[in-house]
Amino acid sequence: MDWLSDNVTLPDEQYYKKAIDRQKLLTKPLGSLGLLEDIAVRLAAMQKTEQPTIDNIWVAVFAADHGIAEESVSAFPQCVTTEMVKNFINNGAAVNVLCNYVKANFEVIDVGLIKAIDESGIVVARAGNATANFAKQAAMTEDQMQIALVAGKSAVERATEQQAHLFIGGEMGIANTTSASALAVTLTGINAGQLTGAGTGLANNEIQHKATIIKNAIKLHQKYLTSPLKILQYLGGFEIAALVGAYIFAAQQRLPVLIDGFISSVAALVAAKITPQANEWFFFAHCSQEKGHKHILNHLKVRPLLDFNMRLGEGSGAVTAVPLLQMACKLHNEMATFKQAGISTK
Amino acid sequence: MDWLSDNVTLPDEQYYKKAIDRQKLLTKPLGSLGLLEDIAVRLAAMQKTEQPTIDNIWVAVFAADHGIAEESVSAFPQCVTTEMVKNFINNGAAVNVLCNYVKANFEVIDVGLIKAIDESGIVVARAGNATANFAKQAAMTEDQMQIALVAGKSAVERATEQQAHLFIGGEMGIANTTSASALAVTLTGINAGQLTGAGTGLANNEIQHKATIIKNAIKLHQKYLTSPLKILQYLGGFEIAALVGAYIFAAQQRLPVLIDGFISSVAALVAAKITPQANEWFFFAHCSQEKGHKHILNHLKVRPLLDFNMRLGEGSGAVTAVPLLQMACKLHNEMATFKQAGISTK
Repeated sequence: MDWLSDNVTLPDEQYYKKAIDRQKLLTKPLGSLGLLEDIAVRLAAMQKTEQPTIDNIWVAVFAADHGIAEESVSAFPQCVTTEMVKNFINNGAAVNVLCNYVKANFEVIDVGLIKAIDESGIVVARAGNATANFAKQAAMTEDQMQIALVAGKSAVERATEQQAHLFIGGEMGIANTTSASALAVTLTGINAGQLTGAGTGLANNEIQHKATIIKNAIKLHQKYLTSPLKILQYLGGFEIAALVGAYIFAAQQRLPVLIDGFISSVAALVAAKITPQANEWFFFAHCSQEKGHKHILNHLKVRPLLDFNMRLGEGSGAVTAVPLLQMACKLHNEMATFKQAGISTK
Repeated sequence: MDWLSDNVTLPDEQYYKKAIDRQKLLTKPLGSLGLLEDIAVRLAAMQKTEQPTIDNIWVAVFAADHGIAEESVSAFPQCVTTEMVKNFINNGAAVNVLCNYVKANFEVIDVGLIKAIDESGIVVARAGNATANFAKQAAMTEDQMQIALVAGKSAVERATEQQAHLFIGGEMGIANTTSASALAVTLTGINAGQLTGAGTGLANNEIQHKATIIKNAIKLHQKYLTSPLKILQYLGGFEIAALVGAYIFAAQQRLPVLIDGFISSVAALVAAKITPQANEWFFFAHCSQEKGHKHILNHLKVRPLLDFNMRLGEGSGAVTAVPLLQMACKLHNEMATFKQAGISTK
């Protein structure tokens, strides 16, 4: 896992300044395009260009099952993970519709469904047949975690081979908000009551049960939870580990990343704990309705683009925000300057 | 002005219910697409269809000058109104770039620039050579207001002739946040200190000066401010009156409207005070950085789609939100159902 500690360089300061200077020339009061200006100058610095572009988008959805599902922590049965993977392959899920809308490349990766499926159109990078139940034992072995991290890295390699301008990771895995909440509690110190939410639709008493499971599991593994990677191994999911690997490698490759919802943000948190500079390569698409998400975003000191009460995962919130990044680029590149348009200044 | 009191019918209850029912069948936890679900079901009800569509978008930007500009209430000189109109015609402004991105029809209407301009590509519907300075006299005569209201109505007529699915109004007029703030203070009862902001970029002492101008003007005209239309006549702008006419007529024509920023929202407020049901036909695109905007949105009890620190006007914030409406429709129409995809439910 040596590649995890490879250097992450920062977005280019010179292109950042050039982009700020260009924004001052465009025919609008300075700052009046708000976050659209911030997005454009960050992308210019990331892409080392005066004309940032988000035309080629790579969406990779990682799917895996979770041993913790046997603790009755999800509103949906475990078989839904595999059923939804088939839905992705058949182009019927929300993320498919959104990817078609923004013309994104889409792939789905089996990082550890409970049983391999015989379908063409799926990328296979299995770390196991579901994680173990982390209420009883470590969710995965170190070897399994390594396979999952590399599954994420490989998705980014495919993205960069195709000259992608933006990477989006999505996830599917019944019970994965339980795993993500456990990771977040351990990494932020915020208590389980605050970070544990309804997932796909639990009632209040079920959420309390879920929080108790998380608290007890953390207590069980406490002495092993000594580093971000150990925490990921003991409490994580294969698809979460894949997202962590993808996010870190994308940052190493200077590829901008658009982070989706709660689970993706927890993966970004893990990535930032391993490699703090990685965070400079992330945009956060939205604040989801999942209770813990806003706490994660606050902890990371980031402002999400949308606040749309979404809570679906699959990368759906991130793909929804893609047009905002594209419009930010177009405005930066195509607006007339005060001089070109002959417009008086203050 | 009899047409202003024509009936506004409500979006269709049956299609609303059908759309809610369809959302329950789609392969996602119910409610997990958040505002995207709300948008889709509202549009289905407005368009009386099971397959809502926002492909054909009409953007009309109304431009006019303001007598109140002579009270030093804007960071930019008055000539910028006309200069920006030329920028619109030459496709160089933010709203042009955004309209090109979403492939919207775009037009700019001279409702009362200080001097008519000789340019092809502008719609001429002049109510005067700028409004009068409302710090000293009524901003416009009743006849002038009528011309401006009809200018808005006519834009919607052009939109419906072209089978538009969505109407967006924009505005350009140096000093028009002063007029809009004065309207909002009078219509909501919120004080001028809370509703008066920086506009295109005033310093704090200049904002205080602007608020004082507004307070004194309202005091001067107090006894005439007896109805929403009288308030519009005494304190409004031609482009604001045009937006009011457009919004009311669009609602009468059952054409969904996407409202832009502070000034457009004040026009929507005036429209809703004249015809309360009109509000049912409005989506609010964003909460702008202009100080008073959130108070207007709260007063109207509406939730904006974006919070992007924008404060440009021109309809720019509304066009930025168009892809969100389009994606909401696509998800509603194109996602697989649980039955189609063979997915287990709770």
